[in-house]
Amino acid sequence: MSEILNEVLDANETYSADFGDKGNLAMPPKRRFAILTCMDARLDPAKFAGLAEGDAHVIRNAGGRASDDAIRSLIISYKLLGTREWFLIHHTDCGMETFTNEVIRDLLANSLETAEFNGEKWRDVGKGPGSRAGEYIEFLTINNLEQSVIDDVERIRSHPLVPKNIAIYGFIYDVKSGRLIEVPEANRIGRAAI
Amino acid sequence: MSEILNEVLDANETYSADFGDKGNLAMPPKRRFAILTCMDARLDPAKFAGLAEGDAHVIRNAGGRASDDAIRSLIISYKLLGTREWFLIHHTDCGMETFTNEVIRDLLANSLETAEFNGEKWRDVGKGPGSRAGEYIEFLTINNLEQSVIDDVERIRSHPLVPKNIAIYGFIYDVKSGRLIEVPEANRIGRAAI
Repeated sequence: MSEILNEVLDANETYSADFGDKGNLAMPPKRRFAILTCMDARLDPAKFAGLAEGDAHVIRNAGGRASDDAIRSLIISYKLLGTREWFLIHHTDCGMETFTNEVIRDLLANSLETAEFNGEKWRDVGKGPGSRAGEYIEFLTINNLEQSVIDDVERIRSHPLVPKNIAIYGFIYDVKSGRLIEVPEANRIGRAAI
Repeated sequence: MSEILNEVLDANETYSADFGDKGNLAMPPKRRFAILTCMDARLDPAKFAGLAEGDAHVIRNAGGRASDDAIRSLIISYKLLGTREWFLIHHTDCGMETFTNEVIRDLLANSLETAEFNGEKWRDVGKGPGSRAGEYIEFLTINNLEQSVIDDVERIRSHPLVPKNIAIYGFIYDVKSGRLIEVPEANRIGRAAI
C-alpha cells in the first residue's frame, strides 16, 4: 500500500475516533456563508477563516476562479442550502500567475510528466508522448491578482441566477503572513446590489 | 459591517498572529497528493485526512464531482506542481442526492430565494421572479453514491491528459462517523494502470 494512503487512513482513524457530536450536524451550513478559494496546499480556509465543521461551504479549484463549476456550486449553496454571504479569495504567489494557456498546452503536448520552473519559466523535462487535448481547456490563468478578484466577483455578481441580496466579498490571502487583504473595488461591486 | 465578515476577519487576525514559519512554505504540495471532495460544510479535509498547511492540494465543488473544472485543476496539480496520488471523496447524506436537474431548474425558474426540503422533496417558498438560466447548467447530481465515485474515478482515469502512473483512490466519507470508506471497484479502476 502507498505510504500516503496509509498516512491518510491513519490520520482518518485518529480523527474519527474522537468525532464527538459532529455526527449530528445538519446539512445546511450553520453560519450561512461560503468561501471560494484556490486549491493551493498552503491555504487552509477552515484555519485562516475560523471554520468549525458544519459552519460554511468551501469551494476550491486552481486559482479560486469563478468558473462555471464554481458558480454551479454557489447556486446550489444558496438555493438549496441557504448561504447568504460569499467570500472570493485569491492569494499571493499563486501558481496561476506563472503560466498562460499557451505555455501549459505546449508543456502537455510535449509530455505528461511534471515540468520544472526556474523562477521565471516552465520547462518540460519529461519524455513523451504528450497530448494535444490541452488545446480544448481554458486554464483560467491569472495575469493580475487584484484584477482577477475584481473580475471574478463581477462575474458572480452579474450571473442571472445569483440573487442581488447575497453579499460577495473579494480578498487576497497573503501566503507570507496568513492575512486576508481586502480588495476594495471587488467589495464595492460585490455588495453594490444589497 | 456584517457579523460574519467581522468574525472571519477576527479569526484571520488570530490565525495570522501566530503564523510561525508557514510563510516559508513552497508552492508545490510537500506530500505530493491532491484531494477532490465536496463543498459540504461538515467536511474538513485537512482534519479528516491529516493535512498540515503545505501538504496537499484540495479541490472542492458541489458533490466532489470530476467536473471539467476539477479536471483542469488536477492537470495543473500534477503537470506543474508534481502531485502523484489523487483521492476522490464523496460523502453520505450529500445534498446532491436530494434533487435532479429538473427539480433545481424548476425551483430557480420560480424564484431566487432559498427552497425548503421536507425530508423527501424540495418546495419553493420564495417570491419571484426566478430565472430560466438553470436550463443551461448541468448540476451533476448524484443518483447512487457508490456509482458516482466509480464514475468519477473512471472519468479522471480515462482523461487523455491524466498520466497512467498517477494513483486514483475512491472513497466515501461517512458524515455520521467521520470515517473514510473505501469503494473497492473505484480503487481497482483508479489504480489499474499503475
